[in-house]
Amino acid sequence: MRILLTNDDGIYAKGIEALYETLVREHEVTVVAPETEQSAVGHSITFLNPLRVKSVQRNGQFFGYALDGTPADCVKIAIAELLQPPPEMVISGINKGANVGVDVIYSGTVSAATEAAVMGVPSIAVSIDSFRTTDFSAAQKFIPELLAMVVKQGLPPGVSLNVNVPAVPAEDIRGVRITHQGKMKYLESYDRRMDPRNNVYYWLCSSAPIPDMDPYADSSAIAANYISVTPIHYDLTHYNTLDTLRAWCGSLENAAFRNQTCD
Amino acid sequence: MRILLTNDDGIYAKGIEALYETLVREHEVTVVAPETEQSAVGHSITFLNPLRVKSVQRNGQFFGYALDGTPADCVKIAIAELLQPPPEMVISGINKGANVGVDVIYSGTVSAATEAAVMGVPSIAVSIDSFRTTDFSAAQKFIPELLAMVVKQGLPPGVSLNVNVPAVPAEDIRGVRITHQGKMKYLESYDRRMDPRNNVYYWLCSSAPIPDMDPYADSSAIAANYISVTPIHYDLTHYNTLDTLRAWCGSLENAAFRNQTCD
Repeated sequence: MRILLTNDDGIYAKGIEALYETLVREHEVTVVAPETEQSAVGHSITFLNPLRVKSVQRNGQFFGYALDGTPADCVKIAIAELLQPPPEMVISGINKGANVGVDVIYSGTVSAATEAAVMGVPSIAVSIDSFRTTDFSAAQKFIPELLAMVVKQGLPPGVSLNVNVPAVPAEDIRGVRITHQGKMKYLESYDRRMDPRNNVYYWLCSSAPIPDMDPYADSSAIAANYISVTPIHYDLTHYNTLDTLRAWCGSLENAAFRNQTCD
Repeated sequence: MRILLTNDDGIYAKGIEALYETLVREHEVTVVAPETEQSAVGHSITFLNPLRVKSVQRNGQFFGYALDGTPADCVKIAIAELLQPPPEMVISGINKGANVGVDVIYSGTVSAATEAAVMGVPSIAVSIDSFRTTDFSAAQKFIPELLAMVVKQGLPPGVSLNVNVPAVPAEDIRGVRITHQGKMKYLESYDRRMDPRNNVYYWLCSSAPIPDMDPYADSSAIAANYISVTPIHYDLTHYNTLDTLRAWCGSLENAAFRNQTCD
């Protein structure tokens, strides 16, 4: 299978190398990844500036293309321009640090998978619940099998998978749990500092996470040593509120746009 | 009411000025907006670098605070640090160009409203369907009334409103339509060019949009001269796929993680 591999930690990160080594045994893998770390860029794309692509080697061999853009840019330019024929699957990761709870919306890793879904290519985002580990064995074992299942079963249009792997050796993984995006978030604050010229600057700090107690939340699954798999999409509509708003709508239009219809 | 006003076109944009002038008549409005245009930054936040805040004047009077960050950064730092007591409402806009269909996921304007929802503050994103208009009268008429309705009725936790206004004079608005995020997207390609030193660069171009024919899609409403109001949230879970994945899950764990449970 033709696989596009990307990430948000940058093309020189250990996580993308681990995934490349696993996938290249059985697939035709092309790496298009940001040149530098792009954490928390969300679904940022670049159109006010041009993009440049350069070849990157690892261990003396061609490894892939580095882009001076975001993860979503990498997927867009790879599918639209660099890869002919286009990839049959996009995998983003292995990201350092879990992408669970509210953090999913800030994640460049997840946004790369979402961009693939927008472009009609099935996709998987993979993260590991540690900023320091160099043991990617559980993810390396799981992803090829999940991939085979996605190929066999297919995913609904517009849906991608957000996979989070506990940072434990493969033998300590208790299994797989299908989850929803949970409500876990970090308590955040800004550190107010002075620069050497006595100008104020602020730096975002986050402290202890506020957990989600639901066992089927993504964060709870990894805390219990399960691999978490969440189906995600990019329709942000809150459907349950449509009828409530339609009930308001009548009052609205009467005043602001007299004699005009409300739908 | 204490209102935080932000945008993604930057603090010097005409759209935020128009909204400020409308809201300040009845409310205590604080502007915290990006110093420069931040279009298509999505839900990007800044934590690898520090942030600086500076005061901005308009017509010789204090107007607000400019931040060298993204729209989501503006909301985060305003609520967590700059505004005491915190705002009771966040409004983001008026953005140049509609934020409808797939474009919603790239939108800094919408992400500012989403960030407010994450932080527990009700919020509204407002865009106008034109990159050139200077007539914001329809939005200026509608937003105060929508605001009053949101205050009276409340919004469910985590839900914000994405408002798109047709670029026509207020008297040509046909009314208000409650919509879902539609499937409209642009056909995109990259222009491959050479710089003066014969290096290749790429620039993202978009051509004609692929429309969504559903009349209750956001893009269809504005095309028919209705103001579109879409309730949005930030739970990306595709709930309809959970059961399908649970059915796969048994096959998965049998092979990759033998003797381990599947949830």
